[in-house]
Amino acid sequence: MKRIQKISEMQEISNGLKRTGKRIGLVPTMGYLHEAHLSLVRKAKKLCDVVVVSIFVNPTQFGPGEDFERYPRDEAGDSAKLEKEGVDFIFIPEVNEMYPSGYQTYVEVEEVSKGLCGDFRPGFFRGVATVVAKLFNIVKPDVAIFGEKDYQQLLVIKKMVEDLNFDIKIIPGVLIRDGDGMAMSSRNTYLSPEERQRALILYRSLLIGKNLYQSGEKKASALLKAVKESIKPVDGVTLQYVEIRDAETFEKIENVDKNAVIALAAIVGSVRLIDNVIIGR
Amino acid sequence: MKRIQKISEMQEISNGLKRTGKRIGLVPTMGYLHEAHLSLVRKAKKLCDVVVVSIFVNPTQFGPGEDFERYPRDEAGDSAKLEKEGVDFIFIPEVNEMYPSGYQTYVEVEEVSKGLCGDFRPGFFRGVATVVAKLFNIVKPDVAIFGEKDYQQLLVIKKMVEDLNFDIKIIPGVLIRDGDGMAMSSRNTYLSPEERQRALILYRSLLIGKNLYQSGEKKASALLKAVKESIKPVDGVTLQYVEIRDAETFEKIENVDKNAVIALAAIVGSVRLIDNVIIGR
Repeated sequence: MKRIQKISEMQEISNGLKRTGKRIGLVPTMGYLHEAHLSLVRKAKKLCDVVVVSIFVNPTQFGPGEDFERYPRDEAGDSAKLEKEGVDFIFIPEVNEMYPSGYQTYVEVEEVSKGLCGDFRPGFFRGVATVVAKLFNIVKPDVAIFGEKDYQQLLVIKKMVEDLNFDIKIIPGVLIRDGDGMAMSSRNTYLSPEERQRALILYRSLLIGKNLYQSGEKKASALLKAVKESIKPVDGVTLQYVEIRDAETFEKIENVDKNAVIALAAIVGSVRLIDNVIIGR
Repeated sequence: MKRIQKISEMQEISNGLKRTGKRIGLVPTMGYLHEAHLSLVRKAKKLCDVVVVSIFVNPTQFGPGEDFERYPRDEAGDSAKLEKEGVDFIFIPEVNEMYPSGYQTYVEVEEVSKGLCGDFRPGFFRGVATVVAKLFNIVKPDVAIFGEKDYQQLLVIKKMVEDLNFDIKIIPGVLIRDGDGMAMSSRNTYLSPEERQRALILYRSLLIGKNLYQSGEKKASALLKAVKESIKPVDGVTLQYVEIRDAETFEKIENVDKNAVIALAAIVGSVRLIDNVIIGR
């Protein structure tokens, strides 16, 4: 496994791989890797000849007062995990390699970025789309894998790829949970044991919504009400939003008559968590 | 010479060319080609194995009330000219191939797009950056050629390529003039003979500025004053702006101590024209 820090070196390597007809898979991450990241890596390994994992805590997707500075980092641990998975390259640039002085170009996916996390984290999806466009031009993958945990992000990336004609196949990776039901996230490390217990209501409430749907309720408003009411009594858990959107277009829907996602964000203690379930699939 | 209308077909061709190690050159145009476009094509022919010329009147770079609908088109004439130059591919997509229903992604180069044409044509550079990013992902060139006539546009593209890490070399092509001094432009066709006579003051005034610089005047304000004063007495010519900017960074400068560009835009009759000269080169 080779560690690359420079953009030009990564591009040269990718150009060489492409000339020999190798299929490149990219798994973009912010590091502090857990089992859910590794499931994306395994997916890339299956689909591609060469796997590149990028590790970059991207400052342009953090707002003022968010956790850019304290976002957990563990390069040694990450490297050991990726080595074991048989990853070929880690691309791990410094911030000033990605955003040198005078940086000023941004990619914006307008509609899909609206609502949900887009409302609570202004500029977040612009930062994500921008850094992913950069990573695509640096690594030149044939395939890139994004987890469904960040469902809105996945759709933002898919729309960007479609609109800007990136010749890259975006493959979703299913959301992976711990044994207690918590959606895996590097940010779970911020939670105290007690906060984590409280946070379990998030997935439980989504399951309540999903079960209600499966028992025949198709009205989004009724499903959302059930989710909200199950979270409300839990102390120390503040819901930011829960919404039901079309799972492909991310448009608002009133009746669930095709695949849809129930997505929520909540603050538990001082930690912002997101989770979702797909219904109708 | 092959005519391609579909994005996927162009991408397949480019992928095939790249696998065989061919160097691809792209000359993006809006068609209605003249000698200045052909000079860019010849430059691409010299630098690359395969030359693609795109012809696309890009709606996202036209504002309301601008000349998108009446922009001159002549595909047959363009094809004949490009065939003669030995161009390999014309990429000439329909508008709905480039911007299908639901299109929503835009690229913005913030600083370089400000001022000058950016002030008079809001959204213009966003439209240009977006379509060029798309063309880059479709044609996958090693080299792309842009004329210095659209000087601010050239710098917007260069900055976008640098910031988004497109692995593409941007080559400028010098501004080409007709015998009477008019900067070549597809829009010159809108001018009546009398308007064209009046419009000649634009280049003349730029030369007055350049000569003043060469005779020792380095103050931008003095150079600009000379340009403005030479245009003012000419009936039917309304200056939108004249500015002096650093020729590399496009930053405002007070004293010309390195390469700079004097750039202007003016309305002649009902036609908006731009022109520039580089000083200190």
